[in-house]
Amino acid sequence: MATLGAELADVAAGRVVIALAIEPRLSQQNGFLHAGVAVAALDSACGYAALTLMPAGAEVLSVEFKVNLLAPASGVRLVAEGEVVRAGRTLTVCRGDAYAEHEAGRVHVATMLATMVRRQAG
Amino acid sequence: MATLGAELADVAAGRVVIALAIEPRLSQQNGFLHAGVAVAALDSACGYAALTLMPAGAEVLSVEFKVNLLAPASGVRLVAEGEVVRAGRTLTVCRGDAYAEHEAGRVHVATMLATMVRRQAG
Amino acid sequence: MATLGAELADVAAGRVVIALAIEPRLSQQNGFLHAGVAVAALDSACGYAALTLMPAGAEVLSVEFKVNLLAPASGVRLVAEGEVVRAGRTLTVCRGDAYAEHEAGRVHVATMLATMVRRQAG
Amino acid sequence: MATLGAELADVAAGRVVIALAIEPRLSQQNGFLHAGVAVAALDSACGYAALTLMPAGAEVLSVEFKVNLLAPASGVRLVAEGEVVRAGRTLTVCRGDAYAEHEAGRVHVATMLATMVRRQAG
Repeated sequence: MATLGAELADVAAGRVVIALAIEPRLSQQNGFLHAGVAVAALDSACGYAALTLMPAGAEVLSVEFKVNLLAPASGVRLVAEGEVVRAGRTLTVCRGDAYAEHEAGRVHVATMLATMVRRQAG
Repeated sequence: MATLGAELADVAAGRVVIALAIEPRLSQQNGFLHAGVAVAALDSACGYAALTLMPAGAEVLSVEFKVNLLAPASGVRLVAEGEVVRAGRTLTVCRGDAYAEHEAGRVHVATMLATMVRRQAG
Repeated sequence: MATLGAELADVAAGRVVIALAIEPRLSQQNGFLHAGVAVAALDSACGYAALTLMPAGAEVLSVEFKVNLLAPASGVRLVAEGEVVRAGRTLTVCRGDAYAEHEAGRVHVATMLATMVRRQAG
Repeated sequence: MATLGAELADVAAGRVVIALAIEPRLSQQNGFLHAGVAVAALDSACGYAALTLMPAGAEVLSVEFKVNLLAPASGVRLVAEGEVVRAGRTLTVCRGDAYAEHEAGRVHVATMLATMVRRQAG
């Protein structure tokens, strides 16, 4: 996430928002953000959201996720919101939505449904 | 859906709710509803939700869906809510959530993310 | 599966095949098998495939699955093949493919990618 | 893909293999490749595989994909194989598998199931 210039824009129990500037280095020749960046931001937002409901010291890994790419992302900023749908002892299910913000508003660019696992201690 | 005794409990633009009684014939030996029933209800709720935003005479088919099974379903009634996340000319993305209702409240039993396609005219 | 008249057609380590007759009671008005039946057969084939690699007495639950519906299913018999992609201590990832067999050959009707969990002892 | 240093290692009708060197700049602090890189490589391999079965001049977009992350990726090279499961006029379903190659062999690190759409002409 650091490589992408992403920051935690909001953190609450079971919900995390990650934001990053849409910069040329993260974009394709046509000016749209690489879909992979939105996917990585959503995956991180979901993972951190899961982590907020786990005990201190826990770690989380993505087991799997599905993402629907809804629209190309252009504009000023990408915002990825992750929230816990169901928290279990081992597995946590999260949902994420990514939006591309521009001056006139925001566009829903991707939606994710993910399964996270609490990592086994080393 | 008729086979399952399901009914349209609510219909609005981009959102459909399907409900069905949790009966022994739809349940496993342990008394829990077959997961397949919740999946079928979610798939239908998503498909009908997509249909509400299409022109009259259109038909919709499920391209694919992912479902997370969150908890076993028991109780009196299963409620499956489908809503459109993004409606396109050809493809519509929907999200669905199924709940098992019992006297004391309801349990979130499954969540779906689905892609629907407007069927080509015969 | 019993309700669907399904039978285990083949069982090997990490691979299970389930077959069922395509009967009118499992079909829609247009004669095609309900998609839910293929999905249930795939889910079962994946679950049993996971079980073949677990110790005796283990139980398996579906965490989640994604299925792409490729073609309507008609014909004589539905065959659902499930195989383990990766077996872990807690989680097992499986892939499944369903085919509708008729006299002239078979049609690939659905493909699944699923995550199974070894059930915690009661 | 150019940013990742990826190259088309093999192209056949309905099947494409993409390979890239596992370099420090694509890796996390623990030395493992960022999961996002494997996901992007799989998405590209699936998209190109779909493209091989389309008429010249066609373009392809990812509608959605699901990926299971099977193991952390380390080693010398990442190989992402994409193949068409079913090619339709508008939609193509693909499957992808990514492997991390090292001196002693290779590890299956991720598997994908994706839906691609033939892009509407501009």
